[in-house]
Amino acid sequence: MSDDIEKSPQAAALGPASSPVPRRAGQAMGESAPVPLTGRRLRAHRVQVDTLREAVAYLRRDSQICRSEGFAAQTRLQLEYGDVVVVATLQTVTGDWLELDEIGLSEAALLALDVAEGEWVRVRHMPPVESFRHVRGRMFGEAFTPAALDEVVADIAAGRYSPIQISAFLTTCTGNRLSDDEIISLTRAMVATGKTLRWQAECIVDKHSVGGLPGNRTTPIVVAIVTSQGLVMPKTSSRAITSPAGTADTMETMAPVDLGLEDMRRVVNAVGGCVVFGGAAGLSPADDTLIQVERPLDLDSEAQMMASILSKKLAAGSTHVLIDVPVGVTAKIRSRYASALFSKRLQTIGHTLGLDISTYVCQGDQPVGRGIGPSLEARDVLSVLQNRSYAPADLLNKSVEIAGRLLEMGGKVPPGDGETCARAVVSSGLAWQQFQRICEAQGGMREPLAGRHSKPVTARHGGVVMAVDNRHLARVAKLAGAPAAARAGVVYEVSIGKPVVSGQPLFTIYAESQGELDYAYEYACRFPAIVAVGES
Amino acid sequence: MSDDIEKSPQAAALGPASSPVPRRAGQAMGESAPVPLTGRRLRAHRVQVDTLREAVAYLRRDSQICRSEGFAAQTRLQLEYGDVVVVATLQTVTGDWLELDEIGLSEAALLALDVAEGEWVRVRHMPPVESFRHVRGRMFGEAFTPAALDEVVADIAAGRYSPIQISAFLTTCTGNRLSDDEIISLTRAMVATGKTLRWQAECIVDKHSVGGLPGNRTTPIVVAIVTSQGLVMPKTSSRAITSPAGTADTMETMAPVDLGLEDMRRVVNAVGGCVVFGGAAGLSPADDTLIQVERPLDLDSEAQMMASILSKKLAAGSTHVLIDVPVGVTAKIRSRYASALFSKRLQTIGHTLGLDISTYVCQGDQPVGRGIGPSLEARDVLSVLQNRSYAPADLLNKSVEIAGRLLEMGGKVPPGDGETCARAVVSSGLAWQQFQRICEAQGGMREPLAGRHSKPVTARHGGVVMAVDNRHLARVAKLAGAPAAARAGVVYEVSIGKPVVSGQPLFTIYAESQGELDYAYEYACRFPAIVAVGES
Repeated sequence: MSDDIEKSPQAAALGPASSPVPRRAGQAMGESAPVPLTGRRLRAHRVQVDTLREAVAYLRRDSQICRSEGFAAQTRLQLEYGDVVVVATLQTVTGDWLELDEIGLSEAALLALDVAEGEWVRVRHMPPVESFRHVRGRMFGEAFTPAALDEVVADIAAGRYSPIQISAFLTTCTGNRLSDDEIISLTRAMVATGKTLRWQAECIVDKHSVGGLPGNRTTPIVVAIVTSQGLVMPKTSSRAITSPAGTADTMETMAPVDLGLEDMRRVVNAVGGCVVFGGAAGLSPADDTLIQVERPLDLDSEAQMMASILSKKLAAGSTHVLIDVPVGVTAKIRSRYASALFSKRLQTIGHTLGLDISTYVCQGDQPVGRGIGPSLEARDVLSVLQNRSYAPADLLNKSVEIAGRLLEMGGKVPPGDGETCARAVVSSGLAWQQFQRICEAQGGMREPLAGRHSKPVTARHGGVVMAVDNRHLARVAKLAGAPAAARAGVVYEVSIGKPVVSGQPLFTIYAESQGELDYAYEYACRFPAIVAVGES
Repeated sequence: MSDDIEKSPQAAALGPASSPVPRRAGQAMGESAPVPLTGRRLRAHRVQVDTLREAVAYLRRDSQICRSEGFAAQTRLQLEYGDVVVVATLQTVTGDWLELDEIGLSEAALLALDVAEGEWVRVRHMPPVESFRHVRGRMFGEAFTPAALDEVVADIAAGRYSPIQISAFLTTCTGNRLSDDEIISLTRAMVATGKTLRWQAECIVDKHSVGGLPGNRTTPIVVAIVTSQGLVMPKTSSRAITSPAGTADTMETMAPVDLGLEDMRRVVNAVGGCVVFGGAAGLSPADDTLIQVERPLDLDSEAQMMASILSKKLAAGSTHVLIDVPVGVTAKIRSRYASALFSKRLQTIGHTLGLDISTYVCQGDQPVGRGIGPSLEARDVLSVLQNRSYAPADLLNKSVEIAGRLLEMGGKVPPGDGETCARAVVSSGLAWQQFQRICEAQGGMREPLAGRHSKPVTARHGGVVMAVDNRHLARVAKLAGAPAAARAGVVYEVSIGKPVVSGQPLFTIYAESQGELDYAYEYACRFPAIVAVGES
């Protein structure tokens, strides 16, 4: 075994994450007798099990390696194939469907290692994740130092944190506990773990919505408007964290969004802008790992939110950023006061990091646009760009206001003239032409379709629409299958302050399967106040 | 399908945890048309994969149920078989080793459902865990109400929280954030989710060690002493959380400890006391679930620690409890001041809950006894009880001091006479006779053996032992395989203040496999200050 190890390319095999634990510790301490490293080779076997992002490895419980290394179920293993290092969770096999010298691999593990059936994979104990001590310290009030966050974020980006460790880290960051300095350090650490983009233009505009408002899909419209006027806007968007659709999910129903860094550069150089998935570009990859745990926890930490926004913008090379902050009792930020605090803090932190940040605070009482869910929102976007008579006026208005602000920030129009200019760009059809150019440059335009199964939720009595519970409405869209099922979601059919008659559809649920439709409908019926109708 | 569902015993199938989500919500809200519930039946298939405690279910990705219900990898499923309900995490199968109408089950899922190959298992979406909103609220500083903690703990005990949700809950409880009232409510909620014991005797004594000190296995000796004097001590112990051995792990190398409630009652009625695993008795089962996540996080929350201790004692029917609080820079509690705060708080909270609590604060600079690891600690225990010449004096002294305090608390001897009495009980052999009776009553005495592979870590130069790093020493024992490998661990060979010569063993590592021995030895060599030797 030690012979085997001597020949292996140790240093290279440790891969991108620099391990805080020296591999040849005896030597590192200047001792004379090097300690042999554990590590065995096994034949890869595809188990044909999908475990989503979590890499799972399978070993026979009665294999020599499990007995000699003390490997047991849930042991964290380090798998090495060529230069690639992947951390996987072990599940032991008690039957004989796996050979004694084989290592079974889940689809995620197979993909990450990029290994073929029968190839030799090296297996060893994962070294302890020393950086987790900083997370433990933070729970007891010890502030994160910049160096501590560098270690933590590097380990997270390298996949060395287990889901429960990531959950603990996110929880320590939630509830307004991180200082501005900690958020700045966290942001820098997140940028440092990924790729970065630099552009020739001096002014690179960008926008971001804090979210919490269903629909609200202004980004594709805004990018089309401002890039048609000569601004550069290389927009990287996220997939949904806790919402029924992220901008990337919506854009994907109209054009490919999984562009690598080189493709993104090509598109922006060709047409001035893009709307792509940030995760595919490798910008701030730790953020994408964190999102995988934030999503099932349905958790949004303010500190994490700021670091997430700012790290993506910095990595994308942006200079001027407008943040859309919807405020409402059921939106993510619930009061004007909270939004003012949030905006001020984000501006201060952004300034330290070299970003010029403005905020666009707006009413967040009800969805903007009618669709909620990737395809349904995309249909709203297209209706606005195409100047359709049925286009949602609120979505048009919000989009031209935001685009107007960006045109002003970027110096393309005098202060006060932005919105008028933006509106003219839409009504003239210029924005629609530019949007088609962007989609073509990203790989070709597609047509977003609605789910095959649908069912309206109707008013039980006549009256006036009083309020909308955005959170529950978003949940209905998620239960219907969004965002994984791109055509699923909800179409919001009414407006606050407008009258409805008994039996009139308040919103319609779309799904790709009858089971999901029933499930979402059942849930919607349990909460009649999702769209509250008052007596007229 | 709905026909199928009509016939099923819905209410019963929901099992012990009362679901916060009404199953037939439409009806509950007084609507006329009941909404059909989703839920399909599939044939159970044993996949022969060990996933430790996490129940995993496997479904073919191309099966009708996955497509119609929108099930995907990592979906949380509710499995029902007869009256048993189990929550499982889904992994989807992309090959054909599973039939389209089968559901694969991991060993944990199979065991929990108690289902045979080919039997029909019902599968549905797990209802959303509504109580997690309280955990989210706590992150933002909203105190837990008693009702909130009842909901959270009931859901945890029923296995409805995923590991990342449990991790978030534990993190919110860590760092001195819970108030006394919250700890009291948490304790009561934990007692309420499990079984409870009541005894005829008015005074039921108990002890607990806060831990953090390797070795320190006084409990079996203390139980033998005080029960030989007529006190009742139905001791439930835990398995290791973050240490190389819990009392239950150690006791298990000498006698069975997985006794159910009835067996425990029988043993205590027969011989006055026992040392059994609390988890097997079903006392405060939420605690056992929490421990499964605390352990890999290497996390000890003070609030969680107090609720854990107190809930186990209350459920076991104890009235007088002595808490052993070792203090030392590398012990769990690091200063006399911290221990005083901890003791005072525990007494106040215990008093509110009707428990008479005393604390025994002692020096925690180095291991008590020589062995660290289940079997190695058991060998120390036996050497003390058998009055061997090589018995560790510190373990004997500490045991008789604790037993003496309990004899005084229980009114068996006047204040001040306890230790003398306890010492006489050991030296006369009475304690050893009583211990054998207890082991026999628990199912028969066993002999604890040391691991087959061993290697000493020696002094690099002569001098005097200055200090011991308990945390790193415990970690060496864990890397050697303890507590899962019962015979693995460390034997501490020296004492603080005593001289050593160059090459003299400071401690010896024992393991059941060469791989684990090498791994632990390699780690030990990286930290020469685990046992610090000063120049003489």
